[in-house]
Amino acid sequence: MGKDPNTIPNIIISRLPLYYQHLKNLQNSDKEYISSEELAELTGFSSSLIRKDLNHFGTFGRKSYGYDVYCLFQQINIIMGFNYKKKVIIIGAGHLGQALAYNKGYTERGYQLISIFDKNPKLIDLVINDIEIKSINNLEKFIENNRVDAAALTVPGAAAQKLTDRLVEAGIKAIWDFTEVPLKVPDDVLLQEQLINEGLCKLSIKMNQLRNNGSKELKDLKCQQK
Amino acid sequence: MGKDPNTIPNIIISRLPLYYQHLKNLQNSDKEYISSEELAELTGFSSSLIRKDLNHFGTFGRKSYGYDVYCLFQQINIIMGFNYKKKVIIIGAGHLGQALAYNKGYTERGYQLISIFDKNPKLIDLVINDIEIKSINNLEKFIENNRVDAAALTVPGAAAQKLTDRLVEAGIKAIWDFTEVPLKVPDDVLLQEQLINEGLCKLSIKMNQLRNNGSKELKDLKCQQK
Repeated sequence: MGKDPNTIPNIIISRLPLYYQHLKNLQNSDKEYISSEELAELTGFSSSLIRKDLNHFGTFGRKSYGYDVYCLFQQINIIMGFNYKKKVIIIGAGHLGQALAYNKGYTERGYQLISIFDKNPKLIDLVINDIEIKSINNLEKFIENNRVDAAALTVPGAAAQKLTDRLVEAGIKAIWDFTEVPLKVPDDVLLQEQLINEGLCKLSIKMNQLRNNGSKELKDLKCQQK
Repeated sequence: MGKDPNTIPNIIISRLPLYYQHLKNLQNSDKEYISSEELAELTGFSSSLIRKDLNHFGTFGRKSYGYDVYCLFQQINIIMGFNYKKKVIIIGAGHLGQALAYNKGYTERGYQLISIFDKNPKLIDLVINDIEIKSINNLEKFIENNRVDAAALTVPGAAAQKLTDRLVEAGIKAIWDFTEVPLKVPDDVLLQEQLINEGLCKLSIKMNQLRNNGSKELKDLKCQQK
């Protein structure tokens, strides 16, 4: 074993979802081994960084073979805790909340989507993807009666902190946050931002690099750090 | 100036969207300066990593003041190319595609959403958020007549490569990819994966760390790397 895998630095955590995604995709290929160089090609990270990340979990590739594609995927699943069952609810049944109700990503990650809540009377009692939209008035009672592990928050920014407070008060310890506004939670509650526009940001950066203009504009920017 | 900001390593690009998000949120606060330690608290990255990232762009905080919140945000906007106009289309008007039609994140990043395409006759001609869903049969003609910079791909995995090929053939150079399947594009086309379940992954990892079980299970895993 390498270092204690129970204390994974945030910076490694930030890269694990991408490793998981590519290793999952490789399970359907006939590839048995993969080198850190090939993983670098897939993920955009350097091969030395990837080796360092995987070494953290005591996972070492075989010289001239690389990593066993099946084993590494099994290990990553355990490291990511996907072998544990977790119940999740969605707060907000707007367009994004509804899209998340149809999201196929829960089961493979150990999550079970058990309910969706909204305050809009026109949405309450509607059934989307076999899940009935419940009134937000029933939130606390539902959480009390069901062991809910996590909540996806897809409400408008103005309502976000109030609903976060209600979730925390009701005992939720993990919030999957789509709101893109600053939220406060106690230290023992996990708040995980999901930046829906992250890919759009990265594309813009890369297109800008190809345009090759950033340097001059930064110099011309009147508002300079002293 | 620091190093050439036109060659930003992927690893720094991967952190810029989160810096952007928090600096944007800070614009509405009365905070004038922010230290790398405070940015570390917000982003979960270490303060030394943040200083190193920002140094890359020639941006240095003032001793005992930190970074100017307004200036740093302006710089980040330029570095990310948000001051350039880019036209984007959405391929696939399913639940996720429709949620993306209502996404409010385009304008601030310099993007303009100009059209949505689908093959489903029931969806074609519907108007969502003032944008008419067009037939996918008209894709090539539309791209030819409009200078389209990027395409969001939200189609089912089975259709993804075929539509990617069509986008590439029609001249699209940047693809915002929600499909979570492996796609092939030529070297001169930017393919940017958007992992919609990334936050769910990170929450699972962090909940698992609190559970403190990973180490033993990894040891017990029968399928070990040799």
